[in-house]
Amino acid sequence: MTTGKRLEKGLTHVYTGNGKGKTSAAFGLALRAIGRGLKVYVIQFIKGGFDYGELHVVMQLPNFKIAAFGRGKFITEMPPTEQDVKLAREALDLTQKVVSGGEYDVVILDEVNVALNLRLIGVDEVVQLIKNKPKHVELILTGRYAPPEVIGLADLVTEMREIKHPYTRGISPRKGIEY
Amino acid sequence: MTTGKRLEKGLTHVYTGNGKGKTSAAFGLALRAIGRGLKVYVIQFIKGGFDYGELHVVMQLPNFKIAAFGRGKFITEMPPTEQDVKLAREALDLTQKVVSGGEYDVVILDEVNVALNLRLIGVDEVVQLIKNKPKHVELILTGRYAPPEVIGLADLVTEMREIKHPYTRGISPRKGIEY
Repeated sequence: MTTGKRLEKGLTHVYTGNGKGKTSAAFGLALRAIGRGLKVYVIQFIKGGFDYGELHVVMQLPNFKIAAFGRGKFITEMPPTEQDVKLAREALDLTQKVVSGGEYDVVILDEVNVALNLRLIGVDEVVQLIKNKPKHVELILTGRYAPPEVIGLADLVTEMREIKHPYTRGISPRKGIEY
Repeated sequence: MTTGKRLEKGLTHVYTGNGKGKTSAAFGLALRAIGRGLKVYVIQFIKGGFDYGELHVVMQLPNFKIAAFGRGKFITEMPPTEQDVKLAREALDLTQKVVSGGEYDVVILDEVNVALNLRLIGVDEVVQLIKNKPKHVELILTGRYAPPEVIGLADLVTEMREIKHPYTRGISPRKGIEY
């Protein structure tokens, strides 16, 4: 493992769309960053309390930290509960601390776009976060329904478009692949 | 790290399109599979001889193997050289051995779609590979320009669409993020 330098200029990425690969792309990027000695912090909005396969590996990596804020399932009731709002708020508070602290080079806000779409947190708050981040910090925002304000500010945006998905053929999530 | 079972039914994924995140998504998936005790083999077409950040980490993971076949740069001359064809052929030969052997649960053919598009290998060969794979093997094909025959056979297809990319603003690839 090489010891990395700080990024000269950190950018903001958005991975959105309805296709598979958004969180995986963020974790793949985390792997690359860690391989260069950069420090990575993943903050999971919505998700949490659920056993994902990748966690068993990343927990053991150096320079990697993860915190999950969610009730272990997707939010299906509308409007979301008070607890959903509270957890998303906690996730955003931690994000603000981690980003402004500047110790972590790559900060991944997993599923933050969904939290924004559900209005668990405000778009303005995330806009301010992006605008005020330390220069060397790379921000990665994932999740469907990225709002136009966030897309407008981002340097890199990929839309993962679902062309085909086995769910539509009734194939259930499989351990090691879907979770 | 849990000890995994074989997948009951392995599927075929395609990550294609012009946006960032295809190879990262495949590596993120590899991480998840390894976390479940599955065995992963990554075979890189086109790429190779180049120092990617993620390699420094994945090399140290258990149940993970990688082989790269390329000249360390993207193929820009058309038609490709004899050496490009030879390397792609070697990559495909190894893929056939690894897939039919059935020891590895997840086999990632990184940038194979580009090799197909450049006609370094034949679409029919990859079609046969998908059709004849052992039932438990999960196949992941990445790269732009996935041919319709491959998309037709795949169970899961995501198109990574570039909405914005810093390259277009003249920002060069950065160590730890782009490589």
